[in-house]
Amino acid sequence: MAERPKRRALLGEMAAEFAGTMILILFGVAVVAQVTAAGIGDHDSIAWAWGLGVTLGVYVAARISGAHLNPAVTVALAAFKGFPWRKVLPYSLAQTAGAFVAALIVRLNYAEVLTTADPGLTIKTQGVFSTLPGNGTLPVGTWGAFRDQVIGTAILLLLILAVSDARNSAPAANLAPFVVGLVVVAIGMAWGTNAGYAINPARDFGPRLASFLTGYETAWQDQHGQLYFWVPIVAPLIGGLIGAAVYQIMVARFLPAEEEPEAGRVPSRTDYEAV
Amino acid sequence: MAERPKRRALLGEMAAEFAGTMILILFGVAVVAQVTAAGIGDHDSIAWAWGLGVTLGVYVAARISGAHLNPAVTVALAAFKGFPWRKVLPYSLAQTAGAFVAALIVRLNYAEVLTTADPGLTIKTQGVFSTLPGNGTLPVGTWGAFRDQVIGTAILLLLILAVSDARNSAPAANLAPFVVGLVVVAIGMAWGTNAGYAINPARDFGPRLASFLTGYETAWQDQHGQLYFWVPIVAPLIGGLIGAAVYQIMVARFLPAEEEPEAGRVPSRTDYEAV
Amino acid sequence: MAERPKRRALLGEMAAEFAGTMILILFGVAVVAQVTAAGIGDHDSIAWAWGLGVTLGVYVAARISGAHLNPAVTVALAAFKGFPWRKVLPYSLAQTAGAFVAALIVRLNYAEVLTTADPGLTIKTQGVFSTLPGNGTLPVGTWGAFRDQVIGTAILLLLILAVSDARNSAPAANLAPFVVGLVVVAIGMAWGTNAGYAINPARDFGPRLASFLTGYETAWQDQHGQLYFWVPIVAPLIGGLIGAAVYQIMVARFLPAEEEPEAGRVPSRTDYEAV
Amino acid sequence: MAERPKRRALLGEMAAEFAGTMILILFGVAVVAQVTAAGIGDHDSIAWAWGLGVTLGVYVAARISGAHLNPAVTVALAAFKGFPWRKVLPYSLAQTAGAFVAALIVRLNYAEVLTTADPGLTIKTQGVFSTLPGNGTLPVGTWGAFRDQVIGTAILLLLILAVSDARNSAPAANLAPFVVGLVVVAIGMAWGTNAGYAINPARDFGPRLASFLTGYETAWQDQHGQLYFWVPIVAPLIGGLIGAAVYQIMVARFLPAEEEPEAGRVPSRTDYEAV
Repeated sequence: MAERPKRRALLGEMAAEFAGTMILILFGVAVVAQVTAAGIGDHDSIAWAWGLGVTLGVYVAARISGAHLNPAVTVALAAFKGFPWRKVLPYSLAQTAGAFVAALIVRLNYAEVLTTADPGLTIKTQGVFSTLPGNGTLPVGTWGAFRDQVIGTAILLLLILAVSDARNSAPAANLAPFVVGLVVVAIGMAWGTNAGYAINPARDFGPRLASFLTGYETAWQDQHGQLYFWVPIVAPLIGGLIGAAVYQIMVARFLPAEEEPEAGRVPSRTDYEAV
Repeated sequence: MAERPKRRALLGEMAAEFAGTMILILFGVAVVAQVTAAGIGDHDSIAWAWGLGVTLGVYVAARISGAHLNPAVTVALAAFKGFPWRKVLPYSLAQTAGAFVAALIVRLNYAEVLTTADPGLTIKTQGVFSTLPGNGTLPVGTWGAFRDQVIGTAILLLLILAVSDARNSAPAANLAPFVVGLVVVAIGMAWGTNAGYAINPARDFGPRLASFLTGYETAWQDQHGQLYFWVPIVAPLIGGLIGAAVYQIMVARFLPAEEEPEAGRVPSRTDYEAV
Repeated sequence: MAERPKRRALLGEMAAEFAGTMILILFGVAVVAQVTAAGIGDHDSIAWAWGLGVTLGVYVAARISGAHLNPAVTVALAAFKGFPWRKVLPYSLAQTAGAFVAALIVRLNYAEVLTTADPGLTIKTQGVFSTLPGNGTLPVGTWGAFRDQVIGTAILLLLILAVSDARNSAPAANLAPFVVGLVVVAIGMAWGTNAGYAINPARDFGPRLASFLTGYETAWQDQHGQLYFWVPIVAPLIGGLIGAAVYQIMVARFLPAEEEPEAGRVPSRTDYEAV
Repeated sequence: MAERPKRRALLGEMAAEFAGTMILILFGVAVVAQVTAAGIGDHDSIAWAWGLGVTLGVYVAARISGAHLNPAVTVALAAFKGFPWRKVLPYSLAQTAGAFVAALIVRLNYAEVLTTADPGLTIKTQGVFSTLPGNGTLPVGTWGAFRDQVIGTAILLLLILAVSDARNSAPAANLAPFVVGLVVVAIGMAWGTNAGYAINPARDFGPRLASFLTGYETAWQDQHGQLYFWVPIVAPLIGGLIGAAVYQIMVARFLPAEEEPEAGRVPSRTDYEAV
C-alpha cells in the first residue's frame, strides 16, 4: 500500500510539471519567434506573453504538483518550505523535458519564418530559443549577465513566496497564478536588458538543446564565442535561494501565526482606529 | 411537459451562443479594421481586443449555454466532457450566425474607412474579416497554416479544460471568463504568425461569408489564389480534440476525485511541511 | 422622516456620481493630452487609461449611487431595470458637472503643454477634450459618427447589463468594476475610429464646455465647421436603449429565475455528464 | 509585556515597509533604465511596470504594515484614518531606505548600460532614478511640476481610500493590491507629462540620493540648474492630504455605516426594482 501510490503520485506530479512547463514555453518561445523573426508585435508583447504563459502553465499544474515549472523554484522551496529534496531532481527533469518538447513544437511550426529570417540558423535567431548576454547586442559580459540572473531570480522567488503565503495577504479566489504571471510580466519589462530574463534553468536549457538538435550549431555560446549556457542554469539557482532567504528574514518571521480570518475580505489597511 | 421545455431550453442556449459570439466578433473584427484600415493601434491592440472580446462574450452566455462561442470547443466538450452530441450542430450554427451578423455590423460601420483604404475590396483588407496564411504576406503555405491551426487550437482547448475544471485549481469568483480571455490574448501574441489565429471555425467562416456578400469577391481564396476557407474550419476541429485529449491524459487523470475544499483560498503551493 | 432622508440620499448619490465621473475624466482627458499634446504614449495608452478610469470611477461611486457615470447608462437602467425616472436628470447633471470640473483641472495642469503644441487652441487639440468625426482626420461624416456612437453605446450597455446581472455569471468578489473597465478598453481598441468612442453624453459635453470656456472657440463644431456637439449626446442615449433591449430579448429572458447557488465557484461549463 | 512587543511590532512594520518599497523601486527604476538607457520597451512598459511594482510591493507588506510604501500615504492615513502619528517618521524612513537600497541594486546591475548611454552620468539618464519637470525636455517649470504632483497624489490618495474602504465596494478576495497597482498604471499613462509622476517622496528621494552617491553630480537639480529635489517631496505630501479630504467630504460621509453584507457578491447596481 506504500510504494505503488507514492510512485503513481510522483508520476502525476512529473506529468503536471511537464505539461505546465510545456504551456509556459509554448507561449514564451513562440512569442519571441513571432516578434523577432516575423516582426509581429514588440517587446511588450514578449513581456505579456511570457507572463501569461506562466499564469496559464500554473493553472494547468497547480492542483497536482504545486506548479513550480522552474528548478530554481523547486530548489528554493526544498531549502525553505519543506518541499521534499528527493523530488527535486524528478521535478527538474520533468520541467526541462516539457520545455524541450514545447520548443521543438515551436521550432517545427515556425520553420518557414525562421529560415526566411535567418537561413543559416545563426545567433541572429538563437534568442528565440535561449538567452544571451545583453540580448546579443548590448555591451554586457558574462559577469553582468550572471549578476542580473541572480538578482532577477531573487526577485521572482521573494514574490512567489509572498503571494502564495497564506499567513500574508495572498490573493484568494485561486487568482495567485494570475498574480505570479504579473511578476514575470514586470520582470520582463524591467529586468530583461542584461540577460533576457531566463530566471529559470529549465526554460533556458530545454529550448537551447532543442535548437541545437535542429540546426543551431552555436547554441551553447554567446555572441563572443564563449560558452554561455551554464549562466542561466547556475545563476537562477543561486538567486532563488537568496530571494527566498530575504523573504524569510525580512517578512515571514514577522507574520502573525494564524492565517487571515477572512481571506476573501478587503485588507483593512485604512482602518487604524483600534490601533 | 417534456418536448416543449427542452425546445425552449435549446432556443435559449442558441440565443446565448449567438449573442456571445456576436460580442466576440464585434470586438475582434472591428479591432482589425481599426488597426489595419484606419491605422489606429498596433498588433498588441489586436491581441488584447480579441482576448477581451472572448472574456466579454463568455460573460454574456456563460450561465445559459456554457459559452462555447466556438464549434471547436463544442465538439471537444462533446467528445471528452459529456456535452450532448445532439446539440453540437445547433450550437455551431448559432455561433456562426452570431459571427456573421457581427461582421455585417462592422462592415457597415467601417464602410467609409474600408473603401478609403482599399477601394477594390481586395485581399488587402480581407484580413479584417477572415484569416490568411502568413497573414497574407509571410512565406507560409497551406500546410504551415493548417499545422499552426491544429497546434493553436490544441493549446486553446487544453487550457479551457484546465481553467474550468473544478477538480483542478480553477479561478473562482466567476473569473474564469477573464482567464479564458487571457488565453486568447497570449495566443494572439505568440501564435498569430502562420495563420492569424482563427482557432475557431465560426469566427472565420461567419465573417468571411459576410465579407463575400458585401463585395469581397476573393473571400474564399488566399493570396496565391488557392481555396483557403476550409483550413480554419477543419484544422481547429482537429486541434481542439487533440488538446482536450492531451489534458485528459497528462493532467485530468491524475487529479484528486474531490474538488478543492475551499476553492476561494490560496493554493497551498508553498506549504509542504506535512508532505 | 420622509422628505429629508430622501433628499440627503439623493445628495449623496449626486456627490458619488460627481466624484466617480470626475475620476473617469481626470484619467480620460489627461491621457489624451499626454499622448497627443506631449507625445508620451500611444493609442493603446489611451484605451487602457480610459478603461482604468472607468474601473476606478466605479469603485468610488458603486456603493452609494450604483456608479452609472454616464447618462446613457442612467436612462437605460430607468427604461429596463426599474431605476427611478425622477433621478435621471439629477444623476445626469451630477455626471456632467463632474466631467466638467475634471476637464478644467486637466486644462489647468496641461496649459503649458497644450499652448506649446497648439498656440491658437484650435481643432488640433480639441480632441483632448471632446470627440470629432473620424477623430478629426479620417473621412467619416456626421452619419458615420452617429451610427458608430449608437452601435458603440449599444455594445456598452449590453455588456454592463450582462456583467452586473446576478442571475447571469457576473464576476464576484466585487470585481465587476474591473470587468466594466475592460469593456471600455476593448471599445477603445475596436470602436474608436469613427467618432472617438464618447459613448457617454456627460463625458463629451462636460469637457467640451470646459474647453470652450477656456479658449477653444470652435469647440462646438467638427473639422468641417458643422455643429457636432449634439451627436455624442443623442446617439449614445439611443444606443444605450438598443443595447439594453438586445440583452433583455436575447439573454435575460432565458436566464434561470434564481441566482447562481455559489457565485464564487467556477462556472461548471465543462461538466455536462448530468445533462 | 508592553514595551518589547510594541518595539518588535514596529520593527516588523519597518521591515515590511522597507521590503515592499524595495520591490516597488526594483521594478520602477529598472524599467526606466531598460527603456531609456537600453532602448527596450516604451512608455507603456514604464506605466505597467511601475503599477505592477506597486501591486507586488503591496502584496509583500500588506499583512504586516498595511503596505503604505509612500510617506504621502502614511501622512494622509494618519490625518484621516487614525494611523498613529508616532509611526509616521519610522514608516517614512523605512520606505526611503528601501527605495535607496533598491536604486543601488539597479545602479549596480545597469552600470554597463548606463555608462554606454551616458558616460558622464548627466541629466540625460538622471530620469532613470529621479523625476524632472517636463521629464527634462518639455516646457514645464517648477510651478507646473509642483501643481502636477499635488493633483496626481490627490488622485492617488482619493482612490486608495476608495478601494480599501470596507464600507464602499472595495475589491474582495485580497485583490485590492492589484487594483491599487492599476491606479498607478493609469496615473503613469495620464499624469506623467509635467513631472514624471513621483507622487511619492520616498520613491523620488531614495533613488536620487543613490544616484548622487554613485556619480550623478547634478542629481539635486533640474535641467535648468535649479534645485528641484524638494518638489516631489513637498507636493505629494500636500496632494495626498487634499485627495484624502476630498474622499471624506464627497464620498465617505455618504456611505452606509455597515459593511456590504456579502462583499464577495456582485454589486446590485442594476437591480433597482425595490427602490
